[in-house]
Amino acid sequence: MDFCLIGAGFIGPVHAANIAAHPGARLRSVVDLNREAAERIVAKHGGIVAASLEAALADKGLDAVVICTPPRTHAPIIEAAARAGKAIFCEKPIDLDLARVAACGETLKRTGVPFFVGFNRRFDPTHKAMHDAIRKGDIGRLEMIVVSSRDPEISPPDYVQAMRYGIFYDTMIHDFDMVRWLTGREPVEVFACTSVMLDDKVNPVRDPDTAMVVLTMDDGALVHVNSSFRAVYGYDQRIETFGEKGMLISRNQQPTGLERYTADGIRQDPLHYFFIQRYAQAYADELDHFVRAVEAKAPLSIGFEDGRRALAIAYAAMESAKSGKPIPIKG
Amino acid sequence: MDFCLIGAGFIGPVHAANIAAHPGARLRSVVDLNREAAERIVAKHGGIVAASLEAALADKGLDAVVICTPPRTHAPIIEAAARAGKAIFCEKPIDLDLARVAACGETLKRTGVPFFVGFNRRFDPTHKAMHDAIRKGDIGRLEMIVVSSRDPEISPPDYVQAMRYGIFYDTMIHDFDMVRWLTGREPVEVFACTSVMLDDKVNPVRDPDTAMVVLTMDDGALVHVNSSFRAVYGYDQRIETFGEKGMLISRNQQPTGLERYTADGIRQDPLHYFFIQRYAQAYADELDHFVRAVEAKAPLSIGFEDGRRALAIAYAAMESAKSGKPIPIKG
Amino acid sequence: MDFCLIGAGFIGPVHAANIAAHPGARLRSVVDLNREAAERIVAKHGGIVAASLEAALADKGLDAVVICTPPRTHAPIIEAAARAGKAIFCEKPIDLDLARVAACGETLKRTGVPFFVGFNRRFDPTHKAMHDAIRKGDIGRLEMIVVSSRDPEISPPDYVQAMRYGIFYDTMIHDFDMVRWLTGREPVEVFACTSVMLDDKVNPVRDPDTAMVVLTMDDGALVHVNSSFRAVYGYDQRIETFGEKGMLISRNQQPTGLERYTADGIRQDPLHYFFIQRYAQAYADELDHFVRAVEAKAPLSIGFEDGRRALAIAYAAMESAKSGKPIPIKG
Amino acid sequence: MDFCLIGAGFIGPVHAANIAAHPGARLRSVVDLNREAAERIVAKHGGIVAASLEAALADKGLDAVVICTPPRTHAPIIEAAARAGKAIFCEKPIDLDLARVAACGETLKRTGVPFFVGFNRRFDPTHKAMHDAIRKGDIGRLEMIVVSSRDPEISPPDYVQAMRYGIFYDTMIHDFDMVRWLTGREPVEVFACTSVMLDDKVNPVRDPDTAMVVLTMDDGALVHVNSSFRAVYGYDQRIETFGEKGMLISRNQQPTGLERYTADGIRQDPLHYFFIQRYAQAYADELDHFVRAVEAKAPLSIGFEDGRRALAIAYAAMESAKSGKPIPIKG
Repeated sequence: MDFCLIGAGFIGPVHAANIAAHPGARLRSVVDLNREAAERIVAKHGGIVAASLEAALADKGLDAVVICTPPRTHAPIIEAAARAGKAIFCEKPIDLDLARVAACGETLKRTGVPFFVGFNRRFDPTHKAMHDAIRKGDIGRLEMIVVSSRDPEISPPDYVQAMRYGIFYDTMIHDFDMVRWLTGREPVEVFACTSVMLDDKVNPVRDPDTAMVVLTMDDGALVHVNSSFRAVYGYDQRIETFGEKGMLISRNQQPTGLERYTADGIRQDPLHYFFIQRYAQAYADELDHFVRAVEAKAPLSIGFEDGRRALAIAYAAMESAKSGKPIPIKG
Repeated sequence: MDFCLIGAGFIGPVHAANIAAHPGARLRSVVDLNREAAERIVAKHGGIVAASLEAALADKGLDAVVICTPPRTHAPIIEAAARAGKAIFCEKPIDLDLARVAACGETLKRTGVPFFVGFNRRFDPTHKAMHDAIRKGDIGRLEMIVVSSRDPEISPPDYVQAMRYGIFYDTMIHDFDMVRWLTGREPVEVFACTSVMLDDKVNPVRDPDTAMVVLTMDDGALVHVNSSFRAVYGYDQRIETFGEKGMLISRNQQPTGLERYTADGIRQDPLHYFFIQRYAQAYADELDHFVRAVEAKAPLSIGFEDGRRALAIAYAAMESAKSGKPIPIKG
Repeated sequence: MDFCLIGAGFIGPVHAANIAAHPGARLRSVVDLNREAAERIVAKHGGIVAASLEAALADKGLDAVVICTPPRTHAPIIEAAARAGKAIFCEKPIDLDLARVAACGETLKRTGVPFFVGFNRRFDPTHKAMHDAIRKGDIGRLEMIVVSSRDPEISPPDYVQAMRYGIFYDTMIHDFDMVRWLTGREPVEVFACTSVMLDDKVNPVRDPDTAMVVLTMDDGALVHVNSSFRAVYGYDQRIETFGEKGMLISRNQQPTGLERYTADGIRQDPLHYFFIQRYAQAYADELDHFVRAVEAKAPLSIGFEDGRRALAIAYAAMESAKSGKPIPIKG
Repeated sequence: MDFCLIGAGFIGPVHAANIAAHPGARLRSVVDLNREAAERIVAKHGGIVAASLEAALADKGLDAVVICTPPRTHAPIIEAAARAGKAIFCEKPIDLDLARVAACGETLKRTGVPFFVGFNRRFDPTHKAMHDAIRKGDIGRLEMIVVSSRDPEISPPDYVQAMRYGIFYDTMIHDFDMVRWLTGREPVEVFACTSVMLDDKVNPVRDPDTAMVVLTMDDGALVHVNSSFRAVYGYDQRIETFGEKGMLISRNQQPTGLERYTADGIRQDPLHYFFIQRYAQAYADELDHFVRAVEAKAPLSIGFEDGRRALAIAYAAMESAKSGKPIPIKG
């Protein structure tokens, strides 16, 4: 399967490396306004730098695109790729505007191209083992979920300024997806509150960098999610699901299993620094799923509706934080 | 110091044993409507069964009382003991009615007797090590707290019926005290939601048995507390404090440190079954503090105001759960 | 049961406190050449300072003695107490000379007094859970045992000089007892090697402070024990039993369950400092066993033969270390 | 760098996959008496099936060979490849006969081809972190090492029969290499004992399947290694290094970080099943080292002398087990 990588920044090189290493995939082209970034990827993983998005999509030999440009650019790219008949692997969120997302959905329905949202955490081996244990009924009916989801550091001010309340629809959107996926259910209400805890130097925008959310699910299960844009001990990613027959914990991960016993105590490594290290396997596995499913014309495990609903929860959380009231979530 | 134990049920025998084992304390009398229960304690730990509360308090040789009767009886006993000039060690909550608590407070102020509320968790060695590390500044400014506080089983229906919303003022009241103690700050708002998850047989009253709370502290720190009245793996008591310089976790405790490696995986003991096992050391240590402080005429570490404020938070949480709205907490 | 404590040093105060706290025991007298040490114990836990061993044993009201004087004095005290008809609780080793031990055994057999060797580790809740799991067949036939047994610091030079090769018959003797108890079998051969690793200041005697042993059991199971007289991270006491159906690990113990996550990594407390903290529960529990068994005229769980055999293994290990050859162990 | 894979069995496919995935390497040919096995690898990872070893080595475009045939065939293949001027990556052991190994060494010296022994564990991230911490002096002078090295199951009887005492030179040889690498020192004496613990069905040859070893290092440090050919809980690979300033533990590894809390206790996954899962990263990293070092004409981190010395220790251990005596190790 021949891929075009659209967006050579941050997460782009991760997808490019996974495409290059996958026996059934090949990097055919890269598109980015920053031509140098695109060239660096091509030099390492093969393919060509396409002159433009249009040029890339006009390529008959191209099978699929991976969209990892900034969120506000996703919708038009999705629509162009869909009209060109390419299978689409899109980083979350689909867009920042729910109406725009809905319009995208119409185009996708019309064109019928395979569409996948990169909620990579569903492919993490530990989260996946939790999901499977829940489905097997190991802890019975789910009653409470507690998710801790903390980044090691905040994004640069420009990015924070462009997103505003990104803690909900850029970060927690992953957690909202995990909750939907683990429970197989939808939330009906959200209450959220936020704080600005980081200092002016790293958060001059004073956008919320600390947040807590409570969701009520449609079967009465209660969910808590907390996030921070600064965890000095690394990327803190834990999920705990509690049910009538027990509890499952998806633990944090560390680079090595070394334990150091000294007069100061027992010390282990800090956690993996960030998502690229923590979810390296998950990124490779989601690409593998995409390639296999598209080739087999089988359904993709994460579709448009998953992307839309997670975003809707994020929006309701933001509305709750702004208003100080719990907000109902519509389907 | 000579003690009268008022209430020979549930937690009474724990206090009686700690009094008997303490080099500076002696069990002088026991009062309970259930004379047999009182006699069992006296047979094991010495002292006499007093004919009545009045008779016990009239005893000139008596120095102090430990009140562990049902919550609704606390206030009149506190007042009688205060008027009799005895030092008071009272199980939480002070009472179930905030106005009644206020009246108690007046009597205590007037009589000036030492008064202590049994928030025993403050004496747990691990929670205490967390408290000390926070005070030393090990994790800098506190930003988020996550408390999991789950009982292994629900109380009998009569008790549940008598309490109503006991998940807040009988159970979480401990957690609210821990949050005040660990942060040294007061919450300004609470949002709470509840579910009834247990089946009819164990929870015929259909009182909330599952709850999640978010507190906003007066410095913007965010706090989450979750509780359940049924955790099949034992008494789940964890606290996590997150700050600018790191995170502290007060882990769960188990009866032994045995690890079993078999073809089924790696298995450890379930958690301690309930609070009597989990907080055995804390109960002994809080009694020791009470004896030492009263004898030295030093201030007690947990006073009337601590009892009153934790109850006020519990009431606001209940109001939030009933109304579905966040509720401000007044001082 | 009325006790005389013989030896007010190191471990004496631990036994005195446990006797004082036990509902069925009382400290009646204390004997020590160092009268001040004896008086300190009496001031805290009651009883009288006896003028001499003879005076103490002549006391008709005395039921039992706890012997915790230096090893070389045990044998004559045991014999005197036995002739006086007192139940005997003796710290290990019975003596440093196997012939002297045999003579003691004759006296004990003749007098028939209850005799107990203080291999306290058999009463540790985690080691005991391992023992019970082995007996229940949880890991099937035992095939290998690995014991790590390291002290935080070496004894003072006088003590080291008096003992010589104490790493075997003062320290590892506990581990040899654990191996016999856990397996229910006897070793047939031992190979041992030692090193002097500590510096001149703390080990001026240059007695072995580091040792490794391999035992072959009578059913072919293999056992490794390692010891050091200096572990900077605390008292390191681990046992691992490996069998056809799995492995059991008796983990190290720490003062608190606090975990600290900072930029330096994840840190827990060092281990308990030494045996008094680590085995506090075991010391109380072994006394309780002694009191109950003697009162019920039931057999004591650790007898003379257990003390003798553990010492015989220690001697064979010393001989192996000195000769550089494996040494057979006779029954 | 173009590779010929010699030996398509067991570990061959692992090396083939790593070569195929490495950006600087390519699988050029595969040699195996079992042509089907060779063809399966070629179908998946490219290259051709060579008609013979001679044909493969005659290929001018070939840069390097990976030797993973049975141990007794290594020496002639090494010599042929050396004469053909190819860089050599050889699985351990170099050969089963020390004289044959010495002859190999002469050929290698004469031809000067790069030669690497696949002691893959040196590339495991956790073992490597331990090595680096020791080198940095984190635990000061090394005093004791304890290695547990247990396979999940025994090899087929044919293999066991062909090896005899393979527990030393096929399995523990890895551990002996780890000890040399971690300490930077040589052992001067070994004592070993063995047992046959597995039943007749899986070990009809009655070759030792359980072994314990003690090594004395040239600086007096003591080392223990234990091995078993059956661990029902998975591949048990732990190393513990103890020094004057503390202890380092290289922990076992599991497939996921899921924890399950139920009424039966707290359960985690069994360990990785075997070395292919446990050391997947190490296999990829050692190939990467080989490719980079050979291309840069830099020294390889594991050379002929490392392979020879580890084998010499294994032989001395076997001699000790056979004779029941400690055996000196010559350089």
